[in-house]
Parts: sequence; structure tokens; C-alpha cells
Amino acid sequence: DWFMDLLYIHSCHKTQESLLTSTSGFNNYRGVLNWCVVMLVLSNARLFLENLLRYGVLVDPVQVISLFLNDPYSWPAACLINNFVFLNIHFENHFRMSSGKQKGSFSELVGFLVHCINFALMLTFPAAVVLLVPSVTPVGGAFVLGSYTILFLKLYSYKDVNLWCRELSTVKAKKLSRSLSCPSAQTLNGGDRKVCYPGNLTIRDMYYFVFAPTLCYELNFPRSSTIRMSFLLRRLFEMLFFIQLLVGLTQQWMIPVIQSSMKPLEDMDLSRMTERLLRLAVPNHLLWLIFFYWFFHSSMNFTAELLRFGDRQFYKDWWNSETVTYFWQNWNIPVHKWCLRHFYKPLLRRGFSKIISQSAVFFLSAFFHEYLVSVPLRMFRLWAFTGMMAQLPLAWFVGNFLRGNYGNAAVWMSLIIGQPFAVLMYVHDYYVLHYREEAQ
Amino acid sequence: DWFMDLLYIHSCHKTQESLLTSTSGFNNYRGVLNWCVVMLVLSNARLFLENLLRYGVLVDPVQVISLFLNDPYSWPAACLINNFVFLNIHFENHFRMSSGKQKGSFSELVGFLVHCINFALMLTFPAAVVLLVPSVTPVGGAFVLGSYTILFLKLYSYKDVNLWCRELSTVKAKKLSRSLSCPSAQTLNGGDRKVCYPGNLTIRDMYYFVFAPTLCYELNFPRSSTIRMSFLLRRLFEMLFFIQLLVGLTQQWMIPVIQSSMKPLEDMDLSRMTERLLRLAVPNHLLWLIFFYWFFHSSMNFTAELLRFGDRQFYKDWWNSETVTYFWQNWNIPVHKWCLRHFYKPLLRRGFSKIISQSAVFFLSAFFHEYLVSVPLRMFRLWAFTGMMAQLPLAWFVGNFLRGNYGNAAVWMSLIIGQPFAVLMYVHDYYVLHYREEAQ
Repeated sequence: DWFMDLLYIHSCHKTQESLLTSTSGFNNYRGVLNWCVVMLVLSNARLFLENLLRYGVLVDPVQVISLFLNDPYSWPAACLINNFVFLNIHFENHFRMSSGKQKGSFSELVGFLVHCINFALMLTFPAAVVLLVPSVTPVGGAFVLGSYTILFLKLYSYKDVNLWCRELSTVKAKKLSRSLSCPSAQTLNGGDRKVCYPGNLTIRDMYYFVFAPTLCYELNFPRSSTIRMSFLLRRLFEMLFFIQLLVGLTQQWMIPVIQSSMKPLEDMDLSRMTERLLRLAVPNHLLWLIFFYWFFHSSMNFTAELLRFGDRQFYKDWWNSETVTYFWQNWNIPVHKWCLRHFYKPLLRRGFSKIISQSAVFFLSAFFHEYLVSVPLRMFRLWAFTGMMAQLPLAWFVGNFLRGNYGNAAVWMSLIIGQPFAVLMYVHDYYVLHYREEAQ
Repeated sequence: DWFMDLLYIHSCHKTQESLLTSTSGFNNYRGVLNWCVVMLVLSNARLFLENLLRYGVLVDPVQVISLFLNDPYSWPAACLINNFVFLNIHFENHFRMSSGKQKGSFSELVGFLVHCINFALMLTFPAAVVLLVPSVTPVGGAFVLGSYTILFLKLYSYKDVNLWCRELSTVKAKKLSRSLSCPSAQTLNGGDRKVCYPGNLTIRDMYYFVFAPTLCYELNFPRSSTIRMSFLLRRLFEMLFFIQLLVGLTQQWMIPVIQSSMKPLEDMDLSRMTERLLRLAVPNHLLWLIFFYWFFHSSMNFTAELLRFGDRQFYKDWWNSETVTYFWQNWNIPVHKWCLRHFYKPLLRRGFSKIISQSAVFFLSAFFHEYLVSVPLRMFRLWAFTGMMAQLPLAWFVGNFLRGNYGNAAVWMSLIIGQPFAVLMYVHDYYVLHYREEAQ
């Protein structure tokens, strides 16, 4: 020991590089991730406290109801009845058409025309109601249009699949189709028997599809064997908790920031506008993340568990996406699957190139984004449309110039900055249209 | 292809779990690190812009000089002369004593007393000057005391090592010591010859040690063979850049936050105090990180390269530390080595327990922290002392209750929150002492 100490006197230093010198070969920076997390938590705790001190508690659950209903006594009943009647008409139409065609009572042309009118009505009727009935609020309108859009996509898929089945069963591939759509009445897990083509045309089957968390119709959905009660309750708890959190954060954080942005936006004060944009980016992004988890994980898993729907892939690992394309292909799997199956592949089959077809998908998506925003706001500004179409050059740029972590960071950046940009544009225009005119 | 599409119609869904469900086995969250980085960059860009808009540009290099010199014509000359004279007296004293003792002209007791007086003077003389001369500013005072403290630690090590060598050469272990301290005049890398005990007692050798980036004296330091010019220039550039950044960030970010904290601190408004503390934590932590890199990587590597000093281990991977002890053992290697070699091990050798010795090291460190802060501020409040001593229970808590990433996060948290807490305490007391009295 004494001897070792003596040795230490004389070998207290030895030739070596500092760890941060690039030639040292050291690369263990595990702690940096923890640092990031701690810094983010503390920064946001500060913002939270500052917000509370400046504005007090703004959370007010009653106010939420007024967003949906301007005049609580006249609107909701009408809306619900309209909704219900319309839904049922559509179901019946589609159901009859599909089964009718199978029996050969409609010609293909008449069927095609009825389908066209049907689908056109489904998008235009609710839009007209939202535009013309003055008591519809923007939030209520967006909710109604969103429901109709989902229904539209579902029924389009229902029509397509039944059409394909009909084509298969009438043309030469009869034997093949039979083996595909109905594998000799074998039993699935859970003991459900497999259904073959015209056997699927029942009200029960169609309602199951309407409520199932998917946009792509299939004759035999994979089913889970039982409803796991603890899983169901956990998802229900998450749903209730996160919807409260969403509403609370919007009232407490988003709205004050947006209100304080109106003056700089009106004056076109560029540096202050940038500052407000960055200030809005954090709560907006956080709300989007919470919304993502609430909708794609909690709510969809809850519905799926309730309906014993087996396929729970509602999203893939979009948070690792290194290209913009990967993000759009993985964050919303139901819509991605629908686009691939009912829009992109049919376009390819008709001889369009990959680039054209891909652009067409973005165009369709841009149309629906604009439809869901402009109509409820009764204001056509094309910001959402432009935002979606801007994804194409962005995808090209990120795909060609940025790799790995840089690509990933670019995707995050476009998400965090792009959204509040569009939000500010719409809010500004809405404000100018409604409140400045009143003031003058 | 057509056949594959048909297959796709019927196998569009399959039974699978969502990725975020705990039973899915998925754990690739690479993207989350990039998300953290992007969020931090954006949040701080926002803060930076907000700060610029609110305060304008506050960076002023001339102001920095006034921090060091209250009265530019009387103080610096006196300080430098004092410094120089004192340094030389010390060197000579030590040099003579060490060589004198070797020749047996001083008794051990006289040598011990002269050493005691010398070391006591070295801490008390500059402290007295800083306390009594009114033109010394706090920053200038801290700088002077810091230099003297470093010199104190170096000369203490010089005395210790020469004492050990003398003991070895006089007592029985003569043969052993000779083989250790002077391995038969073999050549080191770079062609430098090794030096044996009394041969090291030269002015040149001592001055090399005083400027070398270490606190532990050794007879034969490891040397690098050449001065790498590109390495030297890069470190020089970093030194110049980061010192500018430090000054700029302090003026632009720290000082406005500190000034805005005075009112809440005076009123003891607890929620506003917490908000200011969190607001101060980010710039303070950033400045500490920049200071760390500037001092321990750039400056020390620059000096080492210039002096061809081989041992560049000025810090280890403290950013991964999972216990408080690991952090203190790895962030400041020169001081850690000194404490281990000249304080902790001698205590152990005298029969003290590990816990007592470890606590004594923290006590010594707490004393020097307090000395370097209280004397320049001319205000004895023990906040720095308390902060260092609080590391002991913190180390016990983190070591016993938190593991892995949680421990790491706790260490970061204590760094990020603990420092601005102490800073605010001192600034508050300084403000109350100097400015409130003036106002009354």
C-alpha cells in the first residue's frame, strides 16, 4: 500500500488526449439524452408557471360546449337528425346497389351514376349545411365534415371491394376468386366462420365496418378472441384524461398566444411575427402529439378492443422517419392504406407513372385538408392546400440532400414549424374578416 | 401483379398490436433524441428573439473592462506588482527551503513553520487586499483570489512531493526510491532525460510546473514530442470565440433576468421567485457549459500544447454520471487529483475512515468555494458553502434511491437548478446590501 502510494507519486500523469478531442475515440454521450429531457421539462415548467402568473386559470369546460353549439336549443337536434337520416340513406343505397348489382338488376352504368351522385352528395350536402346554416360554429362544422369524410372514404372502399369481388366472380377467374375470398369455410381464430362474396352484403356486416377503426373494407377482418377488460379500461381512462388535457392546454396556452399574435400580424411586424410563431410552435406541437396519442392510440385501440377488431396497426414508427415520404406513409396508417389501395394502385394500374400517382395522392390529401378547414371557417384561403402541396418539394429536398439524423431533424422541424404557420395564417384571416370589420 | 393485388384485397389487415402498446416489444425511439434537440433549438431561438425584441442589443465589450477595473489608473499596476513580488518571494522561499532542507541546513520544525506561515499568507494577503482596497471590483477580486488559490494548491503539491522524495532518500528505502524517481537516466519520448530528486530543484522546473495545466507536481511530467500548430490554433480560436460568447450571453441574457428577479425576491413572492429561478436556470446552465468547455477543453489544451504537456485528461465523462460522487470525481480532474493525492489519501494514511475523509474533502471544497465568492463580494452569507456541503446528503440520496438514467437526470437537475439558486441568493443579498440602502 505504502509502496503503491509511492508509485502513484511518480505516475500521477500519463500521456493521453482529452475526451472531447476528436482523435480520442470516445463517443459515449448517453447522458446528453437525459440532459435534453431535463432541460425540456424545466423550460416548459417555467413557461407553464409564467403563463399561470400572467393569465391565471383560463380552463373552462363549459366554454367548450359553446364551441360546438352556438344556439343550444335549435342546432344539435337538427344536426343529429340530418346526420342520422343521411347516414341511413347512404347505407341503404350502397347496400341495395351492391346486392342489386350482384343479382344483375342494375346495369353497370346506372350503378356507376348512382354511386357518383351518392358520393358527390355526401361531400356537398354537409358542406352546404355548414356554409348556409348560420348557427353552425367552426368547431362543430369541422367535426361534422370530418365524420362525413370518414364515412365517404369507408363507403368508397366498400363499393370498390364489392366491385372487385363481382368482377372476380363474373369473369374467368371464378375458381381463383373463390379460393381467395372463401377458403373452404375454414374457421378463423375466435371461432368466426369466413364469409364469401355475396354473403357479406348484410346490414350487420356494413355497420361493423362503419364503426371499425379502419377505412379499408375487407370481407373477413381479423378478430381478437376476447375483450380484455383491463386494456379497455386503461384506454378509456387515457381517452378521458387526454381529451381534458387537450381542452385545458388549448384554453390556457394556445388561445392567449394566438390572441397576442393578432397585433403583430395585423401590423406585419416581421420579427415579432417570427417570435409569436416560435412561441405558438411549442404548444401547437404538444397538442398535436397529445391529439395523435389520444386519437390513434387510445381511441382507436378502445374501439378496436370493443369490436374485437384484430389489426391494431394504426400508426408505425413515424417518429424515426428520415424522409418526408416515410412520415406520410407511417403516421396515419388507415388513411395511408386507403390511399394505397383505392387511389394510388388503381392509378398505377391505369398506366400513370409513380411520380404522377404520388402527386395525385398528395393533391387528394390537400383537397381534403382544405375542405375540412375552409368550409367550417367559411373562408377560402388555400393555406392548408398549399401546406400539403408544399410537402412534395420538401420531400424532394429532404430525400436528396439530408440523411439519417439530419433528415429526421428536418422532418421534425417541418412538423413543428409548418403547422403553427398554417394555423396563424387562418386565424389572422379569420380575425381580419370578422373582428376588424366590426371594429371599423 | 394483378394476382398480388387480389391477394392484397383479402389480406389488407392482419392481427397485430399498436407499437406504443407495452406488449408490442417495440423500442426504437431514435427519433425522440432528434425531437429533443429540435425542440431545444427552437425554444431557445424563440427566447433569444424575445430577449432581443424586449431589451435590444446589450452586448458591450467595454463594459467588461470596467468590471475588472474600477479606477483604471491606480489599481492594475499595484495589483500586478504585488502579485509578481509575492509570487517570486514564494517561489524563492520554497525553492530555498526545499533545497536547504535537502542539504540539512534547516531543521524540519523550522521548515514546517515557514511553510505554514507561507501558505497562510498566500490565502490571507490577497483576501485582505481585496477586502480593504475599495477600488477592487467583485469580478477583479474573484480573478485575483482564483489565481492565488491555484498557486496555493500547486505550491502545496510541490512541497509535499519534495518532502516525500526527501523522506525516501534519507530513510531506509534509498535504493527503492532511486529506482522509482530516477530510472537509470533512461530517455523519455521526445528525447527528454529523466530527472532525479535534488536535480528537480531548479527555477526552470518550478516555473514549468506553475504554468502547466495541473495541480499535482511530478518530477518527470509526460511530454508530447512536438507542438501541433493546427491543434494549437484551433484551441486558440475556440478560446477567443467562447470568451466572447460568454461575455455576450451574460450581458444579453443573464443580467436582464437577474435584474427582473430583484423585485420578486425583495417582496418574497414565492411563485414569481420560482418562475425567475427557472428562467435564470437555462442561461446560467448554458454559461456554465460554455465555461466548462472554454476552460477545461480549449484553454487547458492550448496551454498543454504550448508547453508540450502530455497528460490532457482535464475531465472525464461526467455528463454520464449516475451518482453525485461520480460527477465530482470526473468533471474537474486537476482538482480531483490534487484532493486525492494531497488530502484524501494522507487522511486515510493517518487512520481516518473513508466517510470522514470524503466529508473532509467536501468541507475543504466548500471552504474554497465560499472563499472565492464571499471575499470578492465583501459579504459572508455561506450560500456557496451550504451548496457544497448539501452535495453530501444529495450524494447519499441519489446513490441509494436512484439508478441509471434516473440518477443521471437527478445529477443534471441538481446542476441546472442548484447553481442559479445560489446565484440568486448572493445577488439578492448584494442588491439589498448595496442598492436598497442607497435608495432609503
